[in-house]
Amino acid sequence: MDCFIGVDFGGTSVKLGVITGEGLILKKNIITIGSGDSFEKIMHPVSEWVQSYLKNNGKDGVKAIGIGTPGFIDKRTNILISGSENVPALKKHSVANILSEKTGIPAYQDNDGTCAAAGESVFGNGINYSDFVMITLGTGIGGGLVLNGKVYRGSKGFSGEIGHICLDPNGIWCNCGSRGCFEQYASGPAIVRNYANKLLKRGIVADEEITPEYIFVRAKSKDEIALEVIEEAGYRIAQAFGTLLNVLNLEAFIIGGGISRSGNMLLPVINKYLPDFVWPQLKENVEVVIAKLQNDAGIMGAAAMAYERLNN
Amino acid sequence: MDCFIGVDFGGTSVKLGVITGEGLILKKNIITIGSGDSFEKIMHPVSEWVQSYLKNNGKDGVKAIGIGTPGFIDKRTNILISGSENVPALKKHSVANILSEKTGIPAYQDNDGTCAAAGESVFGNGINYSDFVMITLGTGIGGGLVLNGKVYRGSKGFSGEIGHICLDPNGIWCNCGSRGCFEQYASGPAIVRNYANKLLKRGIVADEEITPEYIFVRAKSKDEIALEVIEEAGYRIAQAFGTLLNVLNLEAFIIGGGISRSGNMLLPVINKYLPDFVWPQLKENVEVVIAKLQNDAGIMGAAAMAYERLNN
Repeated sequence: MDCFIGVDFGGTSVKLGVITGEGLILKKNIITIGSGDSFEKIMHPVSEWVQSYLKNNGKDGVKAIGIGTPGFIDKRTNILISGSENVPALKKHSVANILSEKTGIPAYQDNDGTCAAAGESVFGNGINYSDFVMITLGTGIGGGLVLNGKVYRGSKGFSGEIGHICLDPNGIWCNCGSRGCFEQYASGPAIVRNYANKLLKRGIVADEEITPEYIFVRAKSKDEIALEVIEEAGYRIAQAFGTLLNVLNLEAFIIGGGISRSGNMLLPVINKYLPDFVWPQLKENVEVVIAKLQNDAGIMGAAAMAYERLNN
Repeated sequence: MDCFIGVDFGGTSVKLGVITGEGLILKKNIITIGSGDSFEKIMHPVSEWVQSYLKNNGKDGVKAIGIGTPGFIDKRTNILISGSENVPALKKHSVANILSEKTGIPAYQDNDGTCAAAGESVFGNGINYSDFVMITLGTGIGGGLVLNGKVYRGSKGFSGEIGHICLDPNGIWCNCGSRGCFEQYASGPAIVRNYANKLLKRGIVADEEITPEYIFVRAKSKDEIALEVIEEAGYRIAQAFGTLLNVLNLEAFIIGGGISRSGNMLLPVINKYLPDFVWPQLKENVEVVIAKLQNDAGIMGAAAMAYERLNN
């Protein structure tokens, strides 16, 4: 049976999985890493696990290896150029090139937002759409594009930096040095900050640590301030989506990332405001949905990306 | 010699041309139309001219006919759905389907912004870029996208509605019903309005009719108010370009339309502010250039679009 290995690099761990072309996970593993670990220290157990799987199961069925990481990966060289502050050791290296050399199997490396889009396109809720944007709402806002049925990477492989589109040139300062970035209005930390500020201004003390999950739970029990925060985040998501629709004439948006797990409450707000930001013909029949892949989205997305690159 | 017929519909005339695959214009014509003319009345002379050309020159060399119009054209049916207020008779009709039926030659119809992008991609300054956005600055702001070396049309053929991306949700009201549309900051009428308002507030009377050309002439002779207006328009163009770069990882922007003829002064302003609106890696080596096709951009773009669709 054809299968694909997916490797997903996060700030504290590397997740690995072997996934069939039908999207079944045959095997998976998690390797803990430290933020100060060298590239060699991180790569050793990853490479060992992949080679041990191939030794025990044969390499004939494994068609490709996909690696998802933070940052900007040059699509011609598979080398990570920059932007991997969560896993600093990856910078200037290529996990793909090393795994490919050690195994003799084609390996590809892509930004985790692009992998998430590939995951939904091949195994998730993107199956029925030719043209969609995937956004991941989490600590930051990432994304990936599927256009004409294929993952679109841009001229160098850096597309999908959706968290930094400017929604207001006089807006909130972003740590990227720009103002009014989308990420400052609808990421996890942005929602938490907005809620905390609203409590502070009203002299209210939260009864537990404020997290996005907590805010969504409060909103479900009709906490007015939590509802306001979700309304404001949804309004800004609608603005970003309207811009993307006007430019790209998409069929759908798929929302993933940590917040999407409790994000069903965002959907009606986004749909309410979307018409304010888009030319009517470009709004027709557009669907906004939550990602299908959740807990294993990282390895599934990396495997799907490898599947997609092998076949295009 | 292979050639292509380009037909360009404007508010007061239809321009027609026969263009070789190398971009040479073999023949051209202009037909005047009235805003109240019926579809049949407009189509008759257009169809006659095309058929007369084919009768006199043979149809073997003519590979395809391209038609550029305002509005939204369904890419599957070539029918204009809406948005052709300048040429109301075109609505619900397909110029392409009629010309194809009458001549037996493949005919395609696309939005004029998309045609402009095809024109630069095939015959103009887009030849060296795989991924670029064309914007046309005129009475409105239109645009078209070339991604992975091909014109990108979106799911229905409606992509490139760049004039209506929201640059400020509390910004200037647009006649589309939204606020802060790009078109309200950098189109011809927007620049004229900004200049006129600045004069009014300062009790200054212009010495002739205010047009975009007049403003650019004044700016060249260091008129401070004209320079301010160009600065403000360029700032907003930079904002729009930054958003497009973050999403699409482009190599270039090509600026066409009436304003581009006197628009060289815009380029340094755009380049000055662009870093404020884009992640640094996505700004590297991006070029902002003026369109190569000027006076015959309409027929050249329509012909290029036909060439591009025939070959993809």
